[in-house]
Amino acid sequence: MPGPGRDGARRNGSDDVNSRVRIEVPADSGFGLEHLPYGVFRPLGGPPRVGARLGDSVIDLAVALDDPMFAQPTLNAFMTQGPRCWREIRERVRDVAEAELPAGAVYPLRAVRLDLPIQVGDYVDFYASLDHATALGRMLRPDGEPLLPNWRHLPVGYHGRAGTVVVSGTDVIRPYGQRRSDSGAPDFGPTRRLDIEAELGFVVGAGSALGQPIGTGEFADHVFGVALVNDWSARDIQAWEGQPLGPFLGKSFATSLSAWVTPLDALSQARIPLPPQHPEPLPYLRDAAGWGLDIAVRVAWNGQLVSTPPYRRMYWSPAQMLAHLTVNGASTRTGDLFASGTISGADRGERGSLMEMTWGGAEPLEVNGVQRTFLQDGDEMVITATAPAVGGGRLELGEVRGRIAKAA
Amino acid sequence: MPGPGRDGARRNGSDDVNSRVRIEVPADSGFGLEHLPYGVFRPLGGPPRVGARLGDSVIDLAVALDDPMFAQPTLNAFMTQGPRCWREIRERVRDVAEAELPAGAVYPLRAVRLDLPIQVGDYVDFYASLDHATALGRMLRPDGEPLLPNWRHLPVGYHGRAGTVVVSGTDVIRPYGQRRSDSGAPDFGPTRRLDIEAELGFVVGAGSALGQPIGTGEFADHVFGVALVNDWSARDIQAWEGQPLGPFLGKSFATSLSAWVTPLDALSQARIPLPPQHPEPLPYLRDAAGWGLDIAVRVAWNGQLVSTPPYRRMYWSPAQMLAHLTVNGASTRTGDLFASGTISGADRGERGSLMEMTWGGAEPLEVNGVQRTFLQDGDEMVITATAPAVGGGRLELGEVRGRIAKAA
Repeated sequence: MPGPGRDGARRNGSDDVNSRVRIEVPADSGFGLEHLPYGVFRPLGGPPRVGARLGDSVIDLAVALDDPMFAQPTLNAFMTQGPRCWREIRERVRDVAEAELPAGAVYPLRAVRLDLPIQVGDYVDFYASLDHATALGRMLRPDGEPLLPNWRHLPVGYHGRAGTVVVSGTDVIRPYGQRRSDSGAPDFGPTRRLDIEAELGFVVGAGSALGQPIGTGEFADHVFGVALVNDWSARDIQAWEGQPLGPFLGKSFATSLSAWVTPLDALSQARIPLPPQHPEPLPYLRDAAGWGLDIAVRVAWNGQLVSTPPYRRMYWSPAQMLAHLTVNGASTRTGDLFASGTISGADRGERGSLMEMTWGGAEPLEVNGVQRTFLQDGDEMVITATAPAVGGGRLELGEVRGRIAKAA
Repeated sequence: MPGPGRDGARRNGSDDVNSRVRIEVPADSGFGLEHLPYGVFRPLGGPPRVGARLGDSVIDLAVALDDPMFAQPTLNAFMTQGPRCWREIRERVRDVAEAELPAGAVYPLRAVRLDLPIQVGDYVDFYASLDHATALGRMLRPDGEPLLPNWRHLPVGYHGRAGTVVVSGTDVIRPYGQRRSDSGAPDFGPTRRLDIEAELGFVVGAGSALGQPIGTGEFADHVFGVALVNDWSARDIQAWEGQPLGPFLGKSFATSLSAWVTPLDALSQARIPLPPQHPEPLPYLRDAAGWGLDIAVRVAWNGQLVSTPPYRRMYWSPAQMLAHLTVNGASTRTGDLFASGTISGADRGERGSLMEMTWGGAEPLEVNGVQRTFLQDGDEMVITATAPAVGGGRLELGEVRGRIAKAA
């Protein structure tokens, strides 16, 4: 294993404990000083700790900032401190990242293992893309209105399973379950319609009390950052079980989260106006300073780019989702994760699920020369995304990667 | 404040640190030596710690057993140890509870505050009562089959909000939300159809790994105990938001859990055969030694008994619920809570929700001389339950109590 600082870092001193390094970052890295996402890493044989990514290096924040708040297996202790602390730490990280660092505070990315960055409290999944909801509605109710009557009035959402949120890179075991069949009775076996959902996730850092809704203007007081999500879905299980109480085992086997959480402040240049909302939302969902995010997502299937979902088209804003989630007085906790739901655009090449890309399996895609519909064992899906960075250029969100393992 | 051991306990020695007490328990207490449920309590000004209830006293287990595993704010550290430890500790608790205890190890129940006994991992709510699902189906789909096609094939369930599980006695703030209205567009305000759901909850003590389903025969290796649940529901919010992804804000504002968790072993005499299941369940849901529970539930509305739901009629067994929850490979964690769904019998006086008792509000109940449908501010609901105890008589599950507070 390479020693600390040998990769992506130039040594400036001797090899002793006082040696210092400066991390060099290519201009187009996407992980420059303007980004500095947080994650949790384990050096070989070492305990997990909080790091910030710069280029292809990880800065050990407990060492670099001399702060035990980062000698922790999750970001939660840091996140719970609230936005003033987040800003202060972000400035300090930028300062140390620009300067020479003690060699013991820098690890090459390829020499560490990345853990799930947060201890997830509750996981909520929304359904905030008009294009996605419309496409699903057309498939599932071909003779009716594609959108249900509530869709334009509230961000539809539901609770998913927090305990099966896994970090990017974790294999996803093909789930068994009751599958809808044409006979009326279900059959049982490994899912035949294993799918992805490319989503953006929002991580609550500072929670809120029972009975205290979070207004749309208070988003940044509570949300720490953003990460990519793949909400794996077994469509045949979901189709059979889903009425009347919604998705359960068709989703609960795994949800992958990127290892890096991008601080909200790093996305200040990605803010864009929302698409028009008709009818006008109820007052608690109005957002005077409302913004969407100009994030360009890419979905790669076994290395082949198959879709480029545009987050900029999402109907409901992140602040509207959080305001809705709490309008009934529900509390939030550090580590709560809420995701956007599948990000889809209007065009076929912009859809965030295979269900849409292949129109329920009826229109196969050619992937590396082979006609494909849903996922096979051994397939690897990688979701990546970029956003305009402060100071120009684009930053790269942490990827979310997963390979399908055979049902056990 | 009374000192330790002054209530429900007879002092046998002097008042010094060496004094010892013996807890006396009336024969029909429901909290005798055959029961000994666990909870978390705070002596006035003291930190939370794990206790066992005997009669109207609480035994401080960190002191009585001289074990720091119980000097904890939740049962999780104990529960994670697994069934061999649970049995061993239960025997030791019974031994010390029968003997004289150091006075400092005993508190009168009325002198302590009870906390939420577990740190909840994921919260899943099932829909396991045939009578309840049939009644709801009749109300919601009067012209169709009351049961949806999947209902007799699998225990229908969904994930609820773990972060808003509160301990019995916590006020429930009437939630705001978008309510279904006759105009087609929603209106917004405090729910007008605030309801209860009387349920039994099962607490996972020893978790299971991703990709490792829990068979029906392995229930007792994982489930630590049982507690009463009130899954508060705002029916007008639920009716508007619930399609296509199921309940969300209509449930997530609060779920009340009893302060006492009854060990599974204390319910060995309550086990009864399941009602017949047709069609025969798929192999993973078959349960050779399958059992239901003969638990008699009571619902009191402002002190008046309004319903006696019989748990014995529940269609799906607890072991079937857990087997289904994990058949897709979903992992479980210490503190996961899954609840049965509303417990209802076939008769009007046996229904576990006001929705059913009042047939959607159309048939008011007389409560203390007043015609009532849904809950008003200030109403207090108390759910209690008894079960056959080992050695004869009945044990009393910890109650779940909640009062409706005005919307903030």
